[in-house]
Amino acid sequence: MASDGATIRHATREDVSTIYALIHELASYEKATDSVKATEELLSKTLSFPESNDSSKFTPGFAKTYLIVAPEGGIAGMALYFYNYSTWTAVPGIYLEDLFVRPEYRKRGYGKALIKKLAQEVVSMGGQRLEWSCLTWNTPSLEFYASLGAVRKDAWVGLRLDGDALNKYAES
Amino acid sequence: MASDGATIRHATREDVSTIYALIHELASYEKATDSVKATEELLSKTLSFPESNDSSKFTPGFAKTYLIVAPEGGIAGMALYFYNYSTWTAVPGIYLEDLFVRPEYRKRGYGKALIKKLAQEVVSMGGQRLEWSCLTWNTPSLEFYASLGAVRKDAWVGLRLDGDALNKYAES
Repeated sequence: MASDGATIRHATREDVSTIYALIHELASYEKATDSVKATEELLSKTLSFPESNDSSKFTPGFAKTYLIVAPEGGIAGMALYFYNYSTWTAVPGIYLEDLFVRPEYRKRGYGKALIKKLAQEVVSMGGQRLEWSCLTWNTPSLEFYASLGAVRKDAWVGLRLDGDALNKYAES
Repeated sequence: MASDGATIRHATREDVSTIYALIHELASYEKATDSVKATEELLSKTLSFPESNDSSKFTPGFAKTYLIVAPEGGIAGMALYFYNYSTWTAVPGIYLEDLFVRPEYRKRGYGKALIKKLAQEVVSMGGQRLEWSCLTWNTPSLEFYASLGAVRKDAWVGLRLDGDALNKYAES
């Protein structure tokens, strides 16, 4: 719960249109709407949701979503995440793929509340790491993350094989 | 299959002691054995294995392992990976957490064969990205990955909250 009484809950299948809207708002904020190939149908098929008859269980899927609901009732933002794994620790962790708070709900500590929720999930599952990525030029976010105690993995560079290169390599 | 007839298969629960040995050999190669907290018991609990009565299904777990078996029968190396997710694509991809080929089996194309196996799995599951990380000073590996068509994500830096900082934040 955030200090103003906002609550955090897992998104259900009924929230897919909201998740889709939030993804587009985030992409628009990053001036990258052309990059968004997500559709509501794809999100429904690939995300994991609490089971309707037992919310402690989840449907099969590749990522989960927390929604933060403002005290006045509106959905203020989301954290979309999946479980990662470290061979060094041999336990899972959480990778935060997207964190977004709608502009009109900012400066209320909702981003922090969502990150805290994920930190709690890591600890409660016996995990050891909460990880995410940030654009190197995004100084305000990097300063915020440093203030949380997050460490920069500057010695590592991410690599990606996709598109034609991926298909070509798979067929080689 | 690698060009010399080596085969690739998913590791089963019976292979945990081999996976454990490979993790230690990799850590020793990276001079980081002190960082390894993995135990065989933890690996058994957290990894996902093919079900014994139906190898197309997998036990619950957070990562899977491919083993490459040399034509002469020895286990030559492994690729340990998990599924990640992109909100932009709304489909899963694969994150390669650890790739290791035992020194005596190198120069046979086994690393390439393991990466190709993962590329094929990404394509066959309808995914779009195969991703991993590399130390920025590891020029030979970076050149090898560039030759595959992999793109460097230089605009991004990884962040990690763990240890005391994670616990403190979860309890805040």
